Amino acid sequence: MITTIAFDADDTLWHNERLFISIKDRYKSLLAEYREGDWIEQRLDAAETRNIQHFGYGIKGFTLSMIETACELTEGRVTGDKILEIINFAREMLAAPIDVLEGVKETVAALSSEYRLMVVTKGDLLDQEAKLARSGLGDYFKAFEIVPRKDKGIYKYILRRHQIRAEEFVMVGNSLKSDILPVLEIGARAVHVPYETEWFHEKVSAEELKDKDFGRLNSIAELPAWLKKVGE
Amino acid sequence: MITTIAFDADDTLWHNERLFISIKDRYKSLLAEYREGDWIEQRLDAAETRNIQHFGYGIKGFTLSMIETACELTEGRVTGDKILEIINFAREMLAAPIDVLEGVKETVAALSSEYRLMVVTKGDLLDQEAKLARSGLGDYFKAFEIVPRKDKGIYKYILRRHQIRAEEFVMVGNSLKSDILPVLEIGARAVHVPYETEWFHEKVSAEELKDKDFGRLNSIAELPAWLKKVGE
Repeated sequence: MITTIAFDADDTLWHNERLFISIKDRYKSLLAEYREGDWIEQRLDAAETRNIQHFGYGIKGFTLSMIETACELTEGRVTGDKILEIINFAREMLAAPIDVLEGVKETVAALSSEYRLMVVTKGDLLDQEAKLARSGLGDYFKAFEIVPRKDKGIYKYILRRHQIRAEEFVMVGNSLKSDILPVLEIGARAVHVPYETEWFHEKVSAEELKDKDFGRLNSIAELPAWLKKVGE
Repeated sequence: MITTIAFDADDTLWHNERLFISIKDRYKSLLAEYREGDWIEQRLDAAETRNIQHFGYGIKGFTLSMIETACELTEGRVTGDKILEIINFAREMLAAPIDVLEGVKETVAALSSEYRLMVVTKGDLLDQEAKLARSGLGDYFKAFEIVPRKDKGIYKYILRRHQIRAEEFVMVGNSLKSDILPVLEIGARAVHVPYETEWFHEKVSAEELKDKDFGRLNSIAELPAWLKKVGE
């Protein structure tokens, strides 16, 4: 019997990647006099990957990677004005309105009367808290867990902390790597709702998905029907 | 009857401000050709204060303020090499060894058999988690709460979350503003253990402290005796 549904936040409850993509485009325009767009993007992606161990996920770490890449690819010739512009990108991203995904509000509202709903997300504490507040969804969730990574150990810790058995827990999210595979490993259920784009850090091979049993929905609006079917 | 003791982390369990002060000194040297040290420090402090609402507490936000100040005070003439050096300061701070304060390990070890110990701290989730792990103190604490700010509402939330009554809770920390005053407001106890320096964001006036009843210790090593006295 499922009692608790945990949702990923970015790109599951609200648009997030879109904001990064649009800022990346402006970043490429800002540096267009030095290098061609694809080349800049490649270097920025490499910096992000290299820096995640130091700076973690979230807007501030991404901004430090943008600044570092700007210095490197211009061989130090980048101007202070452009750096200030990049810091402004960060402020703008942190203040951006929250664009809740289609079907989320209705689904979450309906499920909140029957299940204990939680949010389990990576990112900066302050950012994510502010986003939840601005999303207008805050009241539907009983708990809000911001975690440094999403692996087996973290999910076990969350279940223990809230005294939830694996059999009564389902995780819903757009990332196979973070929201689905580690949750299946601890014997709980998971539902994948893909987002319009997939973040390059979160790719998973077909091999890793072989024989894995989890829900695959096109939209979060299909979740109540899926839960009903599983409960039968 | 006190059952739970919560500790602030930075400058209560381990040195933190020291690291910021030494990085600030290197930052001033890095920019010495442009401006005099005191002037740079003033501008940096102002940037930090202005940016805390956007970037929160922690090393990444501090680094963005250092970069912004460097661009501004050189009127955009700062070189990319210097900006990269500032980003390296961030990596270095994030990887710095944890210097546990004198008396902490013994005191925490002794109290952990009799009380439920927690950490309640501001900062970045990833940073603080890594610091606790590297401090060697992790096993003494039953819970680790990283909060976006320390006000009355947050302390109430923590007590509710852990099902602790205000009468059984005591908060120990170096900041009058964050660790003492809001805790007294919710009817719990608090113990102030000052650090060698006081962070300029956390200053409190004598007026605000008037008639406030809280423990004032010179060292965390005096905490067991204080608890004993209170329990009598």
